[in-house]
This record gives sequence, structure tokens and C-alpha cells, in this order.
Amino acid sequence: MIGITSGDPNGVGPEILLRAYQSKKMPYPFFTIGDYEVLKYCNHHLHLDIPLYKMTSPSDIQGGYLNVLDAGMLTEKDLSIGKISRKGGEASLRYIDKTVELAINRDIEAMVTLPVNKEAIRLVNKNFRGHTDHIAALCNVNTYSMMLVSDKLIVTHISMHVSMKEALDYVVKERIIDVIRLTHDAVKKLRPRVRIAVSGLNPHAGEHGAFGTEEINDIKPAVLTAVSEGMNVHGPIPPDTVFYQAVQGKFDAVVCMYHDQGHIPVKLLDFENAVNVTLGLPVIRTSVDHGTAYDIAWQGKASIQSFCNAFNLAEQLIRKD
Amino acid sequence: MIGITSGDPNGVGPEILLRAYQSKKMPYPFFTIGDYEVLKYCNHHLHLDIPLYKMTSPSDIQGGYLNVLDAGMLTEKDLSIGKISRKGGEASLRYIDKTVELAINRDIEAMVTLPVNKEAIRLVNKNFRGHTDHIAALCNVNTYSMMLVSDKLIVTHISMHVSMKEALDYVVKERIIDVIRLTHDAVKKLRPRVRIAVSGLNPHAGEHGAFGTEEINDIKPAVLTAVSEGMNVHGPIPPDTVFYQAVQGKFDAVVCMYHDQGHIPVKLLDFENAVNVTLGLPVIRTSVDHGTAYDIAWQGKASIQSFCNAFNLAEQLIRKD
Repeated sequence: MIGITSGDPNGVGPEILLRAYQSKKMPYPFFTIGDYEVLKYCNHHLHLDIPLYKMTSPSDIQGGYLNVLDAGMLTEKDLSIGKISRKGGEASLRYIDKTVELAINRDIEAMVTLPVNKEAIRLVNKNFRGHTDHIAALCNVNTYSMMLVSDKLIVTHISMHVSMKEALDYVVKERIIDVIRLTHDAVKKLRPRVRIAVSGLNPHAGEHGAFGTEEINDIKPAVLTAVSEGMNVHGPIPPDTVFYQAVQGKFDAVVCMYHDQGHIPVKLLDFENAVNVTLGLPVIRTSVDHGTAYDIAWQGKASIQSFCNAFNLAEQLIRKD
Repeated sequence: MIGITSGDPNGVGPEILLRAYQSKKMPYPFFTIGDYEVLKYCNHHLHLDIPLYKMTSPSDIQGGYLNVLDAGMLTEKDLSIGKISRKGGEASLRYIDKTVELAINRDIEAMVTLPVNKEAIRLVNKNFRGHTDHIAALCNVNTYSMMLVSDKLIVTHISMHVSMKEALDYVVKERIIDVIRLTHDAVKKLRPRVRIAVSGLNPHAGEHGAFGTEEINDIKPAVLTAVSEGMNVHGPIPPDTVFYQAVQGKFDAVVCMYHDQGHIPVKLLDFENAVNVTLGLPVIRTSVDHGTAYDIAWQGKASIQSFCNAFNLAEQLIRKD
């Protein structure tokens, strides 16, 4: 059973869920955690005519319906479609919290998340830095990473939603080893081989210390430790070369030193289709790799592809677990 | 007239020059600055049979020959093919210095550079940070930038061969405005329209200050100044979105906040074909966008494409100057 958070009610989450259900591209049991009244209104608004069922408990699943575990928070009049709102932020945070609880209790085997708006959530929780950090905190996990998966390229990250200045502080040997290990464990569930490249931090991977010493002091030692643990790991490789080599088939995944080092190549190659997977959690969690897209919310035109890929990847990870 | 430095004698420079000449893809007058004896030996070694002419002065050009302005430094026995050597570094530095002198004296209209090895040059000049910085210093220029040009994407850079830590210090309003202006002046010679995107520095362009304030304090003010000067400039745009938008045709160039932000997408899209152009010099300078490739040097298999593109771009810039 997969649990799906319906995301910020004012964004593209509700319509993506409904239209993905209608497309019949979700061939694994699931239910959604959200507001029944909001989904019902979206269903009506977009003339989708999908049969919805309001569940009475996490095990109350009705065949032939899109099952909704109702948060009971919002109705049509609480919406501010296409806009940041405190109510939208509060509700979308509640959906996440409830779904993590279900996952920890094993009521669901995996969770898939639809997009939330960080600024809306910050109106009720000013320290909210993003889905991934929040879920990790709920799971009491300190060592985790964000993986982006597309057909062409898999990347993981040493740091995520922090400034570039702060990101540099994450580039230390122990953290890099942790992320290499997480990457190795995840990629072996997804690919026949696990050949990992570790990117450098600095231009040309620092050119032997000419500009930057992180490669010498932290990245190379981390790679050597991983190799000594039996993993097939290479690097540090210059950041402007490693992704080309991976796409050419030389590596199965690239460990990246900061958010954009991994996000720039994946988004460039596969803007709409990438899936975000959180590594290191006690639960399986995949996510769309896009935001709430307020500018096109509730218009029935948001792509469902990233969501369907996230759903399928969750199923794949459940079967390999 | 274009002047071509033949690059590190132990790298792929000499053979690329000879094979590009043979391919007849250089339809503009040129001569090369290098060691006649080295080029003669390479010609013989690869059985190319190209007629070489040793010039007596920069105006002594012979039709039907590859004209060489001889540095008179190295012969066959001085080579360490495929290896870093002091002699190779010293000679390649001399070729650059001589060519810049010719450009400043207007003996040539543009210079095209073949790859040098920074570590080899550092054996004779320990402060050498790269072609671009060295040439700018010879021209007494402080405000310059590196542009990468491929068919699919044009990028310019706020900083180049410095560590990521040092790169953050370059992200200040005045520097960003300078690079936007340089980008605008260059792109108008190359493209029918000049729509410039300015990337953010931090993930998601800092999300309104949630992680990083450079977008608010420096990048946005620089964009607004550029707009007030009449340029079509947009940003800051999230780094993981801006390149996709540019490739889709929304922008003609992207101003990038650090070396790899621009190099990762260009190299991923067009690994062998990109051309490096230095902006802000009193002379036109284009360059291959690859290194000395010691592992395949003097084997006759290095791609000549980036060099031919660099040559053609130099010609294009001469005609628009």
C-alpha cells in the first residue's frame, strides 16, 4: 500500500493526483492523505467525474474508488487557488505529518509526496526548510540525502536546501562517506550495476590544490574509504566532466557536492520526468521533482509524468525492500 | 589575419592544428605561433605531409603553406609527449606572450589558442591561473569574463579558476553588472536577439532569502541596473531551471555565478564542440574548450571540432568588430 500526500491544495497537487488516477498509470494499491472536500471540488471543477471515497480508517479501502483519508481541514471556501496561504500551508504540513505517521506504523509501505509550497508552510512553521528535512526530522534521522532519478542520470547530494556558503561546510569526509554508502544502497535496487562517481567541489576538481583543497583533504579520502569497503567508487572527477561521463554510460550515479551541482544536469536532461527519492529514512519516500506551479494550478494542464514516475519508483523500491 | 598559438607541444595542440589545416576548415588567413621544429616533427610523425613554412616576420606569409612564426625554443629531443614538462610549459607560455604582443600591435586581428597545461606552466610561473587570466593581465585589463559558446547554449561567468569558497566573494553587484554588460556586447555580435538570463547563486535562487541573500542584495539590484540601461535582462532565475529555459529558446545567454554553474550544462550538452571566448579584452581571443589530453597526445585522434569552431567564431567576431 502506498500513501500519497495530496500536497498544497492551492497548487497542482490535487489535479495531478486526480488526473494520474484517471490515466490508470498507478498499478499498485494506494490511497491519498488530504482534504476530501478539496479533492471533490477539484474533481468537479475539472469535470473529471472520478469516484471518490472518504475512508473511515487507513485500512478502509474501497475498490473502484480513489480512496481519501480525510484530514477534515479545508473546504472549497478555504482555498486561495494559485496563491500562498496560511491555510494551504497548514493543511499541506498536516498531510505530510499524518503520512509519515502511517509509514512509521507500517500502515503504508511507501509514501509519495505531491508538491508543497515552502513559503506557505513557513507561515505556520518558520523553520520549515523543505519536505525532505522535515520528514527526516519526524523519523529522527540525521544521516540522509536527496537522490534525483531520471532515465539518463541518477544523482545524490551532500547538501540540499542551504545557501552555497553553508553548503561548503557539508563537504567533509564523514558526510561524503555517508552519502556514498546511501547512494550505493539505493542504486543497487534500481540498476544492474553500481558504479559511483564522486564529483569534485571546485572547478577542475581543484587541479591538485591549485584552487581549493577539499578534494585533497576530504573527497579523495572519502572515496578511498568507500573503495576499501568494497564499493566501486571513482573520483573526485571534475564537475564539468562527470555528468557527461555518467550519461555516456561510464557511471550509474554521481555523488554531488551541493544541490545545484546535481540538479542542473538532471533538470537540463529531463526537466519534467525526474523523481526525488529520500535516502536514509526508515520509510520509502519518493516525490515529484517540481513545485506547486501556482501559475497553472487547477487548470488541468500540469504534467502528471513526474508524479507517475515517483509512484512507479516507490513500487519498485517496495518490491526490492 | 588570425594568430594561433600551437599550445603545449606535449599535448594535442600541434596535431589539432595540423589536422585542422589539412581538413580545409579554416577559410580565413592565419599563421601559427609555435616551434617550427616541433610542428615539422609532428607532421612527419603522423604522416600528414603538410607543407610548412618558417616565417621571417609576422607579415611574411606564403600561400599554400601552413605558416609558422617560429619561437625557436624546442626541437624533437626537447619533447616529453603526453607528459608535464618544464620545457613544454615554458614554450607554451612564450607562444601566448608573443601572440598577445602581435594582437596588441595589430599584426593579427584575433588570436585563437590551443590548450596549455597549467601545471607545466606553473613550473616556470607559479602564479599562472590559466590562459584567460594571463592574457587579461598582459592586456592590463581587470574587467573580463569567460564566455562558453555552443550551438545550444551561451554562458558567461562571474568567476573562473578560483575555489568555490573564493568564488562566493565575486558575487557582488558591481561585478555582476560588469559581466552582464560584457555578455550583452558579445552576444549582439553572435545572435539576432540579446535576451540575457542571470542565474541565482543559491538553490532555488535563495527562495526570497530563506537560504542565501546574494540574490536580494546583489544579483537582483544588478539586473535592475542593467534593465535601467536598456538591456533585456531577467533574473535571478533558479540555477536548476535557467539553463533548461535558455535551451528551450527563452534566453540567448545565461550569466552564471561561478565556473561550474556554466560549465556543467554546456559540457553536458556539447562536450566536444564548445568554444571559449574571453570578453573584455582589447583583442579578440577564442580558444578550444578542452585541455591538453595527454592520454591521447600525438596519436592523431583528438577531435578538431572545438578548434575549428573557435577559429570560425574568431572570424565571425572579426567581421562584426
